[in-house]
Amino acid sequence: MNAGETGRGGQMAAEIAEQPAVLDRLLRDGVAEIAGVARLVAARRPRFVLLAGRGTSDHAALYAKYLVEVRLALPAGLVSPSTMTVYGARPDLRDVLFVAVSQSGGSPDLVDSLASARSCGATTVAVTNNPSSALAAGAELHVDVRAGTERAVAATKTYTAELLALYLLFAGVAEAAPDPAVAALPDLAAGLLADDAPVAELASRYRFADRLVTTARGYSYPTAREAALKLMETSYLSAQAFSGADLLHGPLAMVDEVMPVVAVVPAGRGGRAMAPVVERLRERGADLVVVGGGDEVGARTASGEAALPLPRVAEELSPVLEILPLQRLAWHVAVSRGADPDRPRALSKVTETW
Amino acid sequence: MNAGETGRGGQMAAEIAEQPAVLDRLLRDGVAEIAGVARLVAARRPRFVLLAGRGTSDHAALYAKYLVEVRLALPAGLVSPSTMTVYGARPDLRDVLFVAVSQSGGSPDLVDSLASARSCGATTVAVTNNPSSALAAGAELHVDVRAGTERAVAATKTYTAELLALYLLFAGVAEAAPDPAVAALPDLAAGLLADDAPVAELASRYRFADRLVTTARGYSYPTAREAALKLMETSYLSAQAFSGADLLHGPLAMVDEVMPVVAVVPAGRGGRAMAPVVERLRERGADLVVVGGGDEVGARTASGEAALPLPRVAEELSPVLEILPLQRLAWHVAVSRGADPDRPRALSKVTETW
Repeated sequence: MNAGETGRGGQMAAEIAEQPAVLDRLLRDGVAEIAGVARLVAARRPRFVLLAGRGTSDHAALYAKYLVEVRLALPAGLVSPSTMTVYGARPDLRDVLFVAVSQSGGSPDLVDSLASARSCGATTVAVTNNPSSALAAGAELHVDVRAGTERAVAATKTYTAELLALYLLFAGVAEAAPDPAVAALPDLAAGLLADDAPVAELASRYRFADRLVTTARGYSYPTAREAALKLMETSYLSAQAFSGADLLHGPLAMVDEVMPVVAVVPAGRGGRAMAPVVERLRERGADLVVVGGGDEVGARTASGEAALPLPRVAEELSPVLEILPLQRLAWHVAVSRGADPDRPRALSKVTETW
Repeated sequence: MNAGETGRGGQMAAEIAEQPAVLDRLLRDGVAEIAGVARLVAARRPRFVLLAGRGTSDHAALYAKYLVEVRLALPAGLVSPSTMTVYGARPDLRDVLFVAVSQSGGSPDLVDSLASARSCGATTVAVTNNPSSALAAGAELHVDVRAGTERAVAATKTYTAELLALYLLFAGVAEAAPDPAVAALPDLAAGLLADDAPVAELASRYRFADRLVTTARGYSYPTAREAALKLMETSYLSAQAFSGADLLHGPLAMVDEVMPVVAVVPAGRGGRAMAPVVERLRERGADLVVVGGGDEVGARTASGEAALPLPRVAEELSPVLEILPLQRLAWHVAVSRGADPDRPRALSKVTETW
């Protein structure tokens, strides 16, 4: 932990630093439970998957949507909870797997959506950090992400724990062995977090920014979304995340020389699909920083352009690592601006929405 | 048309003004074709619906997602085209209805996604403004929104035509007669567009803003998304749209006294669900403007607070009207800042993404 991190933002800093241990615990203590849930789900042979979450957990749900579509080869959708809670929809959910993701397991709209889904015939799974929560109690099956109590309002360790738990869950449902590289994630995460100086330097670049764009494609798009949310809730920047393709369909017009852009470019197909996006951003003169394990990042680092290189892992696993320096980035920007990332203005830890 | 609208931004102004005639034409000439497509779709008894679009058409697809979930009582998802085009996913799409929405019908990723979906067993429908497009040719069924050639880069008339076409399509699939109020939409739209002074006044409020938040819930959430996109692409504001519930899960922290917020509050359930959101925004001291047909809007107007009241229609139809003053708002802000909304920097009419 760096100097000063036991003061303002000390909780968020401590929880970011805990992540290697959290991932390690989940791999040691959680794998058997998750495999059991996965077997029960696989036996139902779901034909469609619905995923629900809010805030940070919505980004974990979005990551799971890519896993479901690509690895399970099933159609999937992100739930708009309001259709059930506000409009009272009672959809036919036979053959549907409904997965709700929530750190607290306490948001009433998720609890109610899951209860509705269950009564409409869905197989329900809650992925939470609280096995005694209403969401866990309401679901047929529960996955505990075992991240330990999270006190900072800005979620960090529960996000990476949710990602890894969802990866393990859907590998199990696909009846595929997890990539052996998962075992290396705790050490890779520790190595990344130990190397904080480049992130602190990058944070100084954004000290006076009041808007910013993040972008990625595929598995890493949730990273862009989560990084933007961290910057919004801790540093009060208007941070906007776009899939690389959506960025070109309109929002690119607002990008100019004073627009900071963070592009996440992992090794693999999603990263390669970012090449034309990075090219268009370069043409626009954007203030571009590239983060990830892709060749693009290495090439930029070599040419002295702004970049944060990350270890190369399978693309499906890269989101677990990519977010770590971006959490630290949000922390640094917040603290440098005099904000307290543990207690963002206007927010509390459990947000109740209906 | 106002003075000066034949110059810079003249195309976008003309296309905004055409919308009453476009809606009228669709109701006269398109209804039978759409009813025929709906009958064929209903006969297949789809169990899940996937919707695909980019940019403005993605917002029309999001509107359709609410229709499907609430009115058809079927689970639905928005497609991430990259899972098929970048990752090569070949999902099992038997019993799935796949609807692709695109003004031009020409974006390669949509054409490829639809072709993949069709070969994976889905019933495919293209909703486009170009019956001779690749997307229309690739789909089993086609709905022509009949908006006439759209020349301005910022889509306007094709958006409301897509909304109405999707409304008619899914009313047909649900084997329900459309709300008789649809017949009144062209006149209501004309009345709204004739009353431009309050919108011009509102635009002057945002002349110097470089960021802005839009928010709504349910059927009107696509309105918030589309209004934000119009402001981004024509006026280069960092305009961020949030569902009212998601706004409270983090992004609220960045809202303060100098953050402009446009809340869309229709009459009906989605509008009523916005009451706690509007209350939290008021507590935060946000620079709030409320738009719509809800009671909230009337109350604010009566008390002299900033509001744009709209005609009351059934909540499912309100998005067709809500976007009209917000299109005009984007136009006014762009022109007042010296931008040309017909030719936003960095964009062309047909965006090709893969």
